[in-house]
Amino acid sequence: MAQETQNHTLSVSGWAAYDSSGEIKPYTFKRRENGVNDVTIEVLYCGICHTDLHYAKNEWGITMYPVVPGHEITGVVIKVGCNAGKFKIGDRVGVGCLAASCLKCEFCADSQENYCDQMQFTYNGIFWDGSITYGGYSNVIVADYRYVVRIPENLPMDSVAPLLCAGITVFSPLKDNGMLGSPGKKMGVVGLGGLGHVAVKFGKAFGHHVTVLSTSPSKETEAKGRLGADDFIVSTNSQQMQAGKRSLDFILDTVSAQHSLGPILELLKVDGTLVTVGAPDQPLELPSFPLIFGKRSVKGSMTGGMRDTQEMMDLCGKHNITCDVEVIAPDTINEAMDRLAKNDVRYRFVIDIAGRISNI
Amino acid sequence: MAQETQNHTLSVSGWAAYDSSGEIKPYTFKRRENGVNDVTIEVLYCGICHTDLHYAKNEWGITMYPVVPGHEITGVVIKVGCNAGKFKIGDRVGVGCLAASCLKCEFCADSQENYCDQMQFTYNGIFWDGSITYGGYSNVIVADYRYVVRIPENLPMDSVAPLLCAGITVFSPLKDNGMLGSPGKKMGVVGLGGLGHVAVKFGKAFGHHVTVLSTSPSKETEAKGRLGADDFIVSTNSQQMQAGKRSLDFILDTVSAQHSLGPILELLKVDGTLVTVGAPDQPLELPSFPLIFGKRSVKGSMTGGMRDTQEMMDLCGKHNITCDVEVIAPDTINEAMDRLAKNDVRYRFVIDIAGRISNI
Repeated sequence: MAQETQNHTLSVSGWAAYDSSGEIKPYTFKRRENGVNDVTIEVLYCGICHTDLHYAKNEWGITMYPVVPGHEITGVVIKVGCNAGKFKIGDRVGVGCLAASCLKCEFCADSQENYCDQMQFTYNGIFWDGSITYGGYSNVIVADYRYVVRIPENLPMDSVAPLLCAGITVFSPLKDNGMLGSPGKKMGVVGLGGLGHVAVKFGKAFGHHVTVLSTSPSKETEAKGRLGADDFIVSTNSQQMQAGKRSLDFILDTVSAQHSLGPILELLKVDGTLVTVGAPDQPLELPSFPLIFGKRSVKGSMTGGMRDTQEMMDLCGKHNITCDVEVIAPDTINEAMDRLAKNDVRYRFVIDIAGRISNI
Repeated sequence: MAQETQNHTLSVSGWAAYDSSGEIKPYTFKRRENGVNDVTIEVLYCGICHTDLHYAKNEWGITMYPVVPGHEITGVVIKVGCNAGKFKIGDRVGVGCLAASCLKCEFCADSQENYCDQMQFTYNGIFWDGSITYGGYSNVIVADYRYVVRIPENLPMDSVAPLLCAGITVFSPLKDNGMLGSPGKKMGVVGLGGLGHVAVKFGKAFGHHVTVLSTSPSKETEAKGRLGADDFIVSTNSQQMQAGKRSLDFILDTVSAQHSLGPILELLKVDGTLVTVGAPDQPLELPSFPLIFGKRSVKGSMTGGMRDTQEMMDLCGKHNITCDVEVIAPDTINEAMDRLAKNDVRYRFVIDIAGRISNI
């Protein structure tokens, strides 16, 4: 039974996984009433992140059932707490991975709330009041205003939704590793999925030469065509991998399946950096030779802070960047998740929570 | 049969491994005559590096037998080529891992010869003239003067020898990661062996708070006593590891056996860096969670360039830093290697090549 505290009296309709089968079924539950720092949001769309799949099936062993997934949420503000005056009813807003943090530590002070050691996620987290958090697979969400961003007026609410996780997850390491405001770098993107296709768009928008690495030769046309990548390497083709040695300044590895970093590292120049943002449940293989012979770095990065999320949204508005999505109805979530598990999606499923056909 | 080119007429007595048994036996071979850019060096001492063991037993699958190991070489100049006038007969010098590089690329131009893609090692490499290189387990070595450093007068030649590989291997990443001239950092050293014990000395000399991580509780007294470490964590003690979470700015991992980086990474602060300088023949395990949740970095580093090697030597002269060594006679190399394979050495074997008892 879900944990409920006294002021959790707001009835919400949603969808949850009840056990490690991962099957998603309707779920009616309570949320907290809108507090002084909260905004209540009518959810319009919610992206399906690979993380949702991990939690639904308890693949990381930390799921608290029933779990309401979803942290790529767009919607409209319908209630505003007295301290949340930066928002007003009717505002188009987004909620991503973060529900709470300590607001006091050096990371919170620097808007790197994602690295606060008391940070709590939008679902399967423990909120300040001790209640378990429930995500965006639901018609209404209540969020502290400090973890809510505005969505530019020119962007549609469905294809913006995945920016709240997939987008910020690739934007943040680009910013953190000097790839903003320094065009002309040789950038690699490993994996052309939900995260990878946004990374390609960002890389091109920021003026870089972008090479996509993928195990699927079939993705070359789309990568170099519609997405605008400059180059494409089939990562299982040893000849192509050999030819690409020591050619890239920076690689973003978006693959969430277990793999070896060795062959990919060989593509980096000396002193080059690979950032991994996938979260395989098994350890990555890190052979020491390509690492030490090229003085290379492997870095981790997890989503991004709220300031960076808003900055990304504003840049997306400016460059007209959104995600490529397949919008689905809530009653086909399980089918979508099955397809996602097989990487059969271009490039992100987004649930039409409010049942709208056209974007608002 | 060793490869010999026309001017390889200098007879040298040495010790080589002939096959993957790794057994070291006497070996007489030819070196090139002293060229215009060369100095000929009477070898006094040569350290036994873990790499020697890997090559002797062909553990990396790239050994060209017979292999004469040894890249921690100290000796005295006995012949000087006409372009090598920065040295004179009688100079106390050292030769490390590098025998040759292209001398033209961006890395050579910046004295990062160790990252030149034509770099050749002091043994088991291919020199410019096409000959196979032979290392310091021999009474005489001929070296291009650009890969030779001076040894400060106040330092003894035996305990200096391992600085040429173990020393520069840990010095270079310290310099490269801002640990020189910025005292007061929290620094971790994983593994208290040939490399680790020098890293502790450097860390203390450069003003840092040094924590040693080791699987051997028995090393605590020595680490905190004679070597001057501030703290000691038994890496198999989960309570100690838990207490150390998010406490270190920088970790140098010197372990050459396969291991998981996960528990060690947890000790780093957010944005902290671990540099690995060991070279296990099996890939390191890199779980993604401690990497991404802490935006941490794992970097590689391989020995160092010639400018850094001389800088390290001069700093060692200033701070009176040498390695802790067990000096052995050449006829006990095999016994020493057996002990090294079991990490039974404090902290480096050095072969008394010239048969001297006292230091010169």
